[in-house]
Amino acid sequence: MTDFSATRAVFHLPQGVVYLDGNSLGPLPVAAGERLARMLAEEWGNELIRGWNSAGWYVQPRKVGDRVAKLIGAAPGTVVMGDTLSIKVYQALSAALGLNPERRVVLSDSGNFPSDLYVAQGLLAALGRGYELKVVEPEAMEDAIDGSVAATLITEVDYRTGRRHDMKRITAAAHAAGALAIWDLAHSAGAVDVDLTGADADFAVGCTYKYLNGGPGAPAFIYVAPRHAERARPSLSGWMGHEAPFAFDLDYRPAPGIERMRVGTPPVIALTVLDAALDAWEGIDMRDVRARSIELSERFIAGVEAACPGLELGSPRDPARRGSQVSFRHPHAYAVMQALIDRGVIGDFRAPDSMRFGFTPLYIGPSDIDRAVAILAEVLDKRLWDNPDYHRKAAVT
Amino acid sequence: MTDFSATRAVFHLPQGVVYLDGNSLGPLPVAAGERLARMLAEEWGNELIRGWNSAGWYVQPRKVGDRVAKLIGAAPGTVVMGDTLSIKVYQALSAALGLNPERRVVLSDSGNFPSDLYVAQGLLAALGRGYELKVVEPEAMEDAIDGSVAATLITEVDYRTGRRHDMKRITAAAHAAGALAIWDLAHSAGAVDVDLTGADADFAVGCTYKYLNGGPGAPAFIYVAPRHAERARPSLSGWMGHEAPFAFDLDYRPAPGIERMRVGTPPVIALTVLDAALDAWEGIDMRDVRARSIELSERFIAGVEAACPGLELGSPRDPARRGSQVSFRHPHAYAVMQALIDRGVIGDFRAPDSMRFGFTPLYIGPSDIDRAVAILAEVLDKRLWDNPDYHRKAAVT
Repeated sequence: MTDFSATRAVFHLPQGVVYLDGNSLGPLPVAAGERLARMLAEEWGNELIRGWNSAGWYVQPRKVGDRVAKLIGAAPGTVVMGDTLSIKVYQALSAALGLNPERRVVLSDSGNFPSDLYVAQGLLAALGRGYELKVVEPEAMEDAIDGSVAATLITEVDYRTGRRHDMKRITAAAHAAGALAIWDLAHSAGAVDVDLTGADADFAVGCTYKYLNGGPGAPAFIYVAPRHAERARPSLSGWMGHEAPFAFDLDYRPAPGIERMRVGTPPVIALTVLDAALDAWEGIDMRDVRARSIELSERFIAGVEAACPGLELGSPRDPARRGSQVSFRHPHAYAVMQALIDRGVIGDFRAPDSMRFGFTPLYIGPSDIDRAVAILAEVLDKRLWDNPDYHRKAAVT
Repeated sequence: MTDFSATRAVFHLPQGVVYLDGNSLGPLPVAAGERLARMLAEEWGNELIRGWNSAGWYVQPRKVGDRVAKLIGAAPGTVVMGDTLSIKVYQALSAALGLNPERRVVLSDSGNFPSDLYVAQGLLAALGRGYELKVVEPEAMEDAIDGSVAATLITEVDYRTGRRHDMKRITAAAHAAGALAIWDLAHSAGAVDVDLTGADADFAVGCTYKYLNGGPGAPAFIYVAPRHAERARPSLSGWMGHEAPFAFDLDYRPAPGIERMRVGTPPVIALTVLDAALDAWEGIDMRDVRARSIELSERFIAGVEAACPGLELGSPRDPARRGSQVSFRHPHAYAVMQALIDRGVIGDFRAPDSMRFGFTPLYIGPSDIDRAVAILAEVLDKRLWDNPDYHRKAAVT
């Protein structure tokens, strides 16, 4: 059984803060500073250009990818790091369309993160030739998969409500209709028990600055199912994805397997921070994390519904249909969230009326939940709002 | 006049090393470690998600872009940071083709860095519709620009030979033929006196881990001429390039101006290192850097030609036609470079028979040049090669 008090000690959490926004940006791993200082001084500083080989920078995207793979049910050698999630969406979608060349429809849903839709819009406009993005309601996704669909492009966990799609079921439906399934794991990796292999996903992408705590703008990842790895044609064909980058041929030839999804020079400094952050996951069973996440979110919902009658649950009530975050709606959600943040409970606001709270078992426990509920109840107490003394920001202790 | 002994003190150069490979990876700025430690602790650590606003992470790509702009003759607000150079090539080329929709030819030369050609090949294959990449010899570039060319895609300074294209003249030729000119400044930014405004370039891209010393995999930049900024349509349309990223609309609308060339979440940690590295350039006149660079390369060529009869200059002899690097050819270039590196003179090898030496006035001076020449002469001395004692690697002092 995972010892969550040990993992909590891995992170820097400012005094007096209950951090329920790890679904947006994970906290600093305490070891990152020293690790990075060492990388700067010993690798970049002393090795200089030789660091590409001597310090393993060149193979880092694949090595770190293997560490991420473990957390999302993927085999070694199927995940590679680099770029941003938007870029990885572009790569996955263009490769999927190339593998299903007779079809013209990309199917997504309105619960997808907008950037995924923007990227699809840009790609399909560039491709022309009748390519079309069809966006349905999340609940209508399964029924909308038909013989016209080349690929589904779905974020497993909704960034606003935490609603979780059934990856295995939708992937099976896509395959039954002759479509490929691309999964965005932005709110899944490190949050829920993803099983890409078991779900038979075709492509997956994700970011690492949320539940994986890689820091602001940490590199993204892409997964390609082994059955596609040698046939997927990268449209973002950069030299690091070339079969022989240092032969400097004038013609592109894709590298074997997942390596072809590399594009430019890897972000070594950011990958070093991420690598340090991933140490927190060593020996951790994602099933334990999932069980604890459900325990925390259930406790939060029960607490809020008992103490804060003005709030409406914006997330599915069934924990099996939720990721690791919960949202509550309130007509003055923005103001309430600002008041919460002032008092040390950090969640975030999503227009028009949602407050999001993320549950990250590695460093958030039951007492944090209770404290957050109590402060939320206090903030919403009408008698307090009417008392001018309350609005002198008291330092949270 | 720039004081190059002051700039030298800004960098960490290992004892006993003459580093002539800053054209591949610049050295560590001494201040980067402390700056990064502060960013981790105070911004990420304590501000957490609030850092996007309170620490200015969100506007960093543009702010750092303005600092790079100064070094390449670009106006404020015309350069933005992010991604890798390969990605920026893709963005510039697809935007340029969108602005010149009747034409189908992209013209490049065989002296371009292969990744630029790979990226063009990938993009043009995706576009279909008769798009074609035409690659000519560098010397034939100007004559090859005709009425079929939509855009030229040229690296100003050849990564192998240091040959420098005439940006102003070729851009004028492109414009006269109704084509757009895209310039890759990988070996130009911080190396030569680039004047994008004066040359009337349409797009420019570049990396920052070479002469700008941003560290391995540092973020790239893209420049869009103000006349195109509101019309250039990004094909990599990510949320950070949206007009209102936090409105979370389902449809993409490009941000005003250069901001639309942003794609995903910016690489804050890497940008922080780069920002620290750019401090070295405060108050420095690129004309001084260029003059010093020519002085150093001329000294190197003269020294090598006097002391090393077996080497053949692989770079243009006219310094006006060179960037800030020089290559020499030798049948055993690989072995000679290894021997040089063993003795603390770090350049690099490029197949099949070239040794490259980069001159970076911020931290390389005449005495480094003389030392490198002396060691190169020693390495090439046939009598020494025949003496087995010589091959016991002596530590360079």
